[in-house]
Amino acid sequence: MTTPDPNAIAILGGTGDQGLGLALRYAAVGRPVVIGSRKEDRALTAAEEVREKVPDAQVSGFENAEATQRAEVVILSVPFEHTAGTIKSIKEVLVADQIVVSMGVPLATAVGDGPLRTVGVWQGSCAELVKSLLPAEVHTVSAFQNVPAHRLQHLPDPVECDVIISGAKAPRERVMALAEEIPGIRSVNGGPLANARYVEEWTALLIGMNIRYKVPEGMGFRLTGLPE
Amino acid sequence: MTTPDPNAIAILGGTGDQGLGLALRYAAVGRPVVIGSRKEDRALTAAEEVREKVPDAQVSGFENAEATQRAEVVILSVPFEHTAGTIKSIKEVLVADQIVVSMGVPLATAVGDGPLRTVGVWQGSCAELVKSLLPAEVHTVSAFQNVPAHRLQHLPDPVECDVIISGAKAPRERVMALAEEIPGIRSVNGGPLANARYVEEWTALLIGMNIRYKVPEGMGFRLTGLPE
Repeated sequence: MTTPDPNAIAILGGTGDQGLGLALRYAAVGRPVVIGSRKEDRALTAAEEVREKVPDAQVSGFENAEATQRAEVVILSVPFEHTAGTIKSIKEVLVADQIVVSMGVPLATAVGDGPLRTVGVWQGSCAELVKSLLPAEVHTVSAFQNVPAHRLQHLPDPVECDVIISGAKAPRERVMALAEEIPGIRSVNGGPLANARYVEEWTALLIGMNIRYKVPEGMGFRLTGLPE
Repeated sequence: MTTPDPNAIAILGGTGDQGLGLALRYAAVGRPVVIGSRKEDRALTAAEEVREKVPDAQVSGFENAEATQRAEVVILSVPFEHTAGTIKSIKEVLVADQIVVSMGVPLATAVGDGPLRTVGVWQGSCAELVKSLLPAEVHTVSAFQNVPAHRLQHLPDPVECDVIISGAKAPRERVMALAEEIPGIRSVNGGPLANARYVEEWTALLIGMNIRYKVPEGMGFRLTGLPE
């Protein structure tokens, strides 16, 4: 049994655009990054890609359950339709006080419709679906849904996005601090996990505006009036 | 029968915080403003309040149906639970090509719950509810849901908010231009009216963050990465 590293960040679905972006950003600031995938060889390939762009990266690649055991904070960056399946595949190896970060959005692509619309989630949001499937002693925090993959992957520029983070106080504050390690991210306290639904839905609106305004690198937002 | 003035803006519920704020802003930029209310005397009082703060204001006050007949653009600024009732009270006097701007948000206060949560709307959003109740030849546009009342009312400062506006192309573009007459507002094309649901829901999240961060004047947002 591996003890989860309190400094490391595991990114399940770290082979996807947004997950890989987070892996690059955390590797670039010196965090140990563990990329998880359903197939170990894809995780290893993604880890290699991170090492190419961040030569001194501490990065490794594993199958999802293996990756989960190696970091206290586990970011779930899989398409919405793989959320429940991924949780089931890691549930047995999670230990008390690990934090699972939900960044999923219930885009209607999950049912073959388009990304400008969402599907309803019985629990209220992807984050609450995640929480409903996890053991009670594992924390769920919602974050990163509105950060475009291209901005994450383009290391020379700061991300320039506010990230609204919700969940119970202690794990939320930990993820808020973690998010701010990425240049250009400002963390905003989004309150209880149920508020994840607002943030998730916003992604579908942003995707539509990116298409309408032809912004392939993706828009983010900054709150105005937020106290320093 | 009065012909709706193409330059005027009617604001139904112009006696409320946000409606009054819009009345002040449009009066301040020289637009004729018609304040509507269920009670004419309340509309007259609000018009007087606008004249006190904007001495050269062209502002009048009428009962809602009277106000509706006096402006091509009619902003609906009533609490969500009065939406359908207000539409019913003005439906008979609306004429082809008038534009009704929905700025309502289905906050759960409508059913005695709090403003940090929303209720589901059968049609998808308050804006779509409005559209469903209007004659087909009247346009519905969604706008202004995320602009805090205090910022609107505080004339010395620009509002500093992006406003996401959705609806059919021609009326949407007209409202986008109108919104930008208010200092500090940038209009963003939010696409079809159905996208109003994302913008409306966001208000409940913003209200929660205003409480959490103690920002009585209210937060807004700016999109980052939007082309000039």
